[in-house]
Amino acid sequence: MPQNGREENGYDPEDDRNVNHDNGKHKELGELSVERLFENQEVPSWRKQLTVRAFVVSFVLSILFSFIVMKLNLTTGIIPSLNVSAGLLGFFFVKTWTKLLRKSGLLKQPFTRQENTVIQTCVVASSGIAFSGGFGSYLFGMSERIAKLSTNTHDFKNPSLEWIIGFLFVVSFLGLFSVVPLRKIMVIDFRLTYPSGTATAYLINSFHTPQGAKLAKKQVRELGKFFSFSFLWGFFQWFYTAGDDCGFASFPSLGLKAYKYKFYFDFSATYVGVGMICPYIVNVSVLVGGILSWGLMWPLIEKRKGDWYSADLPETSLHGLQGYRVFIAIAMILGDGLYNFVKVLSLTIIGLSHQFRKKDVSSDLPTAGHSSDHVSSQVSYDDKRRTQLFLKDQIPAWFSIGGYVAIAAISTATLPHIFHQLKWYYILVMYIFAPILAFCNAYGTGLTDWSLASTYGKLAIFIIGAWAGASHGGVLAGLAACGVMMNIVSTASDLMQDFKTGYLTLASPRSMFVSQLIGTAMGCIISPCVFWLFYKAFDDIGQLGSQYPAPNAVVFRNMALLGVDGFSSLPRNCLLLCYVFFGAAILINFIRDLAGKKWRQFIPLPMAMAIPFYIGSYFTIDMCVGSLILFVWEKINKAKADAFGPAVASGLICGDGIWTLPASILALAGVKPPICMKFLSRGTNIRVDNFLTPQG
Amino acid sequence: MPQNGREENGYDPEDDRNVNHDNGKHKELGELSVERLFENQEVPSWRKQLTVRAFVVSFVLSILFSFIVMKLNLTTGIIPSLNVSAGLLGFFFVKTWTKLLRKSGLLKQPFTRQENTVIQTCVVASSGIAFSGGFGSYLFGMSERIAKLSTNTHDFKNPSLEWIIGFLFVVSFLGLFSVVPLRKIMVIDFRLTYPSGTATAYLINSFHTPQGAKLAKKQVRELGKFFSFSFLWGFFQWFYTAGDDCGFASFPSLGLKAYKYKFYFDFSATYVGVGMICPYIVNVSVLVGGILSWGLMWPLIEKRKGDWYSADLPETSLHGLQGYRVFIAIAMILGDGLYNFVKVLSLTIIGLSHQFRKKDVSSDLPTAGHSSDHVSSQVSYDDKRRTQLFLKDQIPAWFSIGGYVAIAAISTATLPHIFHQLKWYYILVMYIFAPILAFCNAYGTGLTDWSLASTYGKLAIFIIGAWAGASHGGVLAGLAACGVMMNIVSTASDLMQDFKTGYLTLASPRSMFVSQLIGTAMGCIISPCVFWLFYKAFDDIGQLGSQYPAPNAVVFRNMALLGVDGFSSLPRNCLLLCYVFFGAAILINFIRDLAGKKWRQFIPLPMAMAIPFYIGSYFTIDMCVGSLILFVWEKINKAKADAFGPAVASGLICGDGIWTLPASILALAGVKPPICMKFLSRGTNIRVDNFLTPQG
Repeated sequence: MPQNGREENGYDPEDDRNVNHDNGKHKELGELSVERLFENQEVPSWRKQLTVRAFVVSFVLSILFSFIVMKLNLTTGIIPSLNVSAGLLGFFFVKTWTKLLRKSGLLKQPFTRQENTVIQTCVVASSGIAFSGGFGSYLFGMSERIAKLSTNTHDFKNPSLEWIIGFLFVVSFLGLFSVVPLRKIMVIDFRLTYPSGTATAYLINSFHTPQGAKLAKKQVRELGKFFSFSFLWGFFQWFYTAGDDCGFASFPSLGLKAYKYKFYFDFSATYVGVGMICPYIVNVSVLVGGILSWGLMWPLIEKRKGDWYSADLPETSLHGLQGYRVFIAIAMILGDGLYNFVKVLSLTIIGLSHQFRKKDVSSDLPTAGHSSDHVSSQVSYDDKRRTQLFLKDQIPAWFSIGGYVAIAAISTATLPHIFHQLKWYYILVMYIFAPILAFCNAYGTGLTDWSLASTYGKLAIFIIGAWAGASHGGVLAGLAACGVMMNIVSTASDLMQDFKTGYLTLASPRSMFVSQLIGTAMGCIISPCVFWLFYKAFDDIGQLGSQYPAPNAVVFRNMALLGVDGFSSLPRNCLLLCYVFFGAAILINFIRDLAGKKWRQFIPLPMAMAIPFYIGSYFTIDMCVGSLILFVWEKINKAKADAFGPAVASGLICGDGIWTLPASILALAGVKPPICMKFLSRGTNIRVDNFLTPQG
Repeated sequence: MPQNGREENGYDPEDDRNVNHDNGKHKELGELSVERLFENQEVPSWRKQLTVRAFVVSFVLSILFSFIVMKLNLTTGIIPSLNVSAGLLGFFFVKTWTKLLRKSGLLKQPFTRQENTVIQTCVVASSGIAFSGGFGSYLFGMSERIAKLSTNTHDFKNPSLEWIIGFLFVVSFLGLFSVVPLRKIMVIDFRLTYPSGTATAYLINSFHTPQGAKLAKKQVRELGKFFSFSFLWGFFQWFYTAGDDCGFASFPSLGLKAYKYKFYFDFSATYVGVGMICPYIVNVSVLVGGILSWGLMWPLIEKRKGDWYSADLPETSLHGLQGYRVFIAIAMILGDGLYNFVKVLSLTIIGLSHQFRKKDVSSDLPTAGHSSDHVSSQVSYDDKRRTQLFLKDQIPAWFSIGGYVAIAAISTATLPHIFHQLKWYYILVMYIFAPILAFCNAYGTGLTDWSLASTYGKLAIFIIGAWAGASHGGVLAGLAACGVMMNIVSTASDLMQDFKTGYLTLASPRSMFVSQLIGTAMGCIISPCVFWLFYKAFDDIGQLGSQYPAPNAVVFRNMALLGVDGFSSLPRNCLLLCYVFFGAAILINFIRDLAGKKWRQFIPLPMAMAIPFYIGSYFTIDMCVGSLILFVWEKINKAKADAFGPAVASGLICGDGIWTLPASILALAGVKPPICMKFLSRGTNIRVDNFLTPQG
């Protein structure tokens, strides 16, 4: 995931600590001209950048990150930037590998930063599929399990390994081919920033300087320590989870009353780590959202039970309280999405017109663009060398255009066989507009680091869903269209991000493209398999209150229903509240943009606020604990916290994430945890004790 | 408690880390002659050493330490040396006090090390009563609650605030008067070591050098940090303890099977701290004892159920498995006690004869005694000055002898009114022999740091119990006699220990004596009140498996029964096993003494091994965790671990200890914790879930 700004995760790129942090390094190194440091180092040819060892390491890391992303998808949908850990671990693996080989005298090729970039690209492409594949959103939203939680229970398509892999293969490569011809325009002519890609490049560059390697080694050690801790903690927790509401994840750490309203610390190392990586404003936003919804609104609405909605409905009915939760969250997400869509689109148009006007005047020479902060004397050398290498290896336009048309044709022919509801002409229309949207997203991401992939997906849900209509399975058609659209625009911006990284590390565009292709192919196989493992191992995926509630699956499905059926089925006053929150989301975003730097850091992000609306606030407590740890750490030792905070957080996330592998294998093998750690109120406990005593 | 070597706690003074640690400082300072450092500092008169602020601080600390000692008494009976924390906290309080006064310009008298010694003496005397008062052993062993757990249920005397305070007042001061006249012989002529007293003195001396004060400040900060953590942790745990077997103290951290045999980590900050203070060998010994008994012997004996003992008996019957647990533990404790009694007694006799022979030859001048490790040139100055000041303030012999006789008379007249079973002539006989035993104990402690107070107490149980006989309430007579004896010999050795501390810090013997008197008086009131709070607040004190099982109370009562009734009531093969363990205890001790320094550190202490026999191994896990933490810390940073280990441990112990104050107040006020954290096996959990579901 090269973007810090997945829409679901409510990231604000300008607040992003990682980027700022790495920009710090950037400037430091920038002062001495990065490329002069590497002057004596030969840049291998693009074929030599694509080593077998790089792809072996990528494969291993892809599995690791697919697990992590899948787990995050299925728990809250908040996915922080894992670039730093991918870069760090990639560096560590290959470095160890080459060190071992050097000792045994077998080393043929030294480890270069270009190779590091190839790994990074491949891993990010591969684990990106775990996100854009929609396993936590549109794709899982089609399943029967999620359908049962919505008002439309008859339109469903259960996941199965074959069709998912097939589907991913026919839609995931389109995005790559659609934007390849534009790489020179975006990277060299427009000089777009791509904050995450730039940050990654500087990270990789710094690793390959002697001092950077030493720091990286220390960071890896720290990561390893917290990886082990987090893994063992996950393992330890497992023993106490025999049954529902058992174990540390149900620990009413703030009391039973607060637990009832989903306020508790659930001891999840993952979300403590996520909290450490996410900017403070994201953590504060989710907490504010949690307090607003579960602390205030839901208890108030619950008092209207029998008045606003029928009191006889089951807990999970969307006609009851659950409906308010889901639809108000959707309204807020859509409001935020719409605002940002309009904003990024207008920025894109303004930027483009600006660029073209300038292009007429200025030459092709790399002079300071609107995003450049280089000192001109250094720029000339660094940029000259980078541009030279970037332009050396060309990818012919006929190749990419031909590729796009060929894949689009295959895809148009195949997809209706997978989703009968998705007619071939829907697909064709989408594929005609897709390159434009892909370009818009790649350009927007370059400007703001905010990929709008899932907003484009939601757009597709509404348009195609409404076009197909309720009677013709519009729900499924909409969700499938969402998948097609998301995959195209998401991979397009990923690729461009990687081109930027490649540009800054002198990696060839060809090797980037090939690495992205291989990574995408890996992802199309790994991600469905990982999802399949989760799906088979945990029966209660998608159930609210379970370990894996997959909140976005429910949200996406209900969006599709909304698009198809309209607002008729909403409970009383729900629509009004939806309008209010839709408007509030736009308003808050608008105020954020108007406010000065000083104030905007105190204004929450509507997107982040909406997440706890549906699933509860427990993960917000985790994230705030992570924030708090980092905050205290920064107070005590800022330098150390900056250097090792991301490593510690990555360790926590990776360890817990990879524990899900043995956990799901144990679940598949039918090995159940032996003990239930249960929390009972004093009264219930007395009853249970009386119940248990006669039997011994 | 100036002795590190309470009998119950299974301390081996030669392994004692604290002492070694402080001896390290001792030598360091010794090289530059301690008293030369303090040359310019005027020594206040003995009246000026006894300041009001000192006693106010002592009072506060006495309450704190009484809570801690009481908690330890009632949980396992293992009481580590709290000298370091008493010294540290005393220093901290008065230092803060004087600093505040100096700032406000009201300071009349600077804080001297003599005053520090006065506080130390007073606190130790006061909290010593919490141990020698027998609230966890003989005194509580008389109560109905404990009587119900033994075979003799009709001889009991329930605790009540009045008679306990009265009893303590008439017996606790005898010890002081009995050994006062001998102070010059023991401290100056015999030059006895008193390792704990010496260590405390060097600690206090070091605090009052500028460098020492700085270190002390850091240590106090560390102590405060862990104090807060431990207190808050205790508070947090409280919420989850609604009902039996609830909360972290019942956490089956090693699995349910291990939990059944009392192997689990019970998250007690106190015992983690105790483990950090106790020498490694003590921690290993309790663990070995726990594994031997609960891991091996009890499961094996349980298999003989129905054969060796009746299968119909309740869990708590002493004719069943419980009998093996209690009596084998007693056998081992007695074997160890007997061995050490004989050993210390013979060392005392040898030492005495040695001293007297030497005294004939040498003059009164302070030359190197058998325990001196000073360099002679420095010794002369330090010792000259110390001796001079020690001899300046005399306590007339007629005063102490008169005091002893007067108190003994009052005591002989009063005690039979408290315990009808304890005839006046028993008491008279005890008071005739008591000064000799008090001297023996004070001398033995001076040599080995091992106070045999409770061994003398056990001796009294058997002798007076047998003399009185079963029909005349021998059980109660024995336990009461134990109390009389323990209080005398324990306070005697405490006082002599403090004289040594006073000698080394130039504190006057008079101020030491007065401070000890005041401290003892405080203890006679504070300790019963603290005990009363526990007794009233927690109904299940003394119940096996409860929060406060008070294991020594059961052990002491059963010793008295054994002395009165003989072995007739023991279950089958129990007596044989008792003999085996009695012999093994002696043998192990003997091997320990024969083995070289290198090997003896690997031979466990029988006394320590016996403790888990009755109550289970959970606290041994805690202690080993504490050991492990210290071990790892020492590996990482030896200097830091040495400097701050005791402070961290004290913080953990004090914080958790003082939490028992609000906890018992909450219990008294009828405020019950709201949640039960329960641990159920998977099968039971399913049953419980089925039971709970219909109701909601």
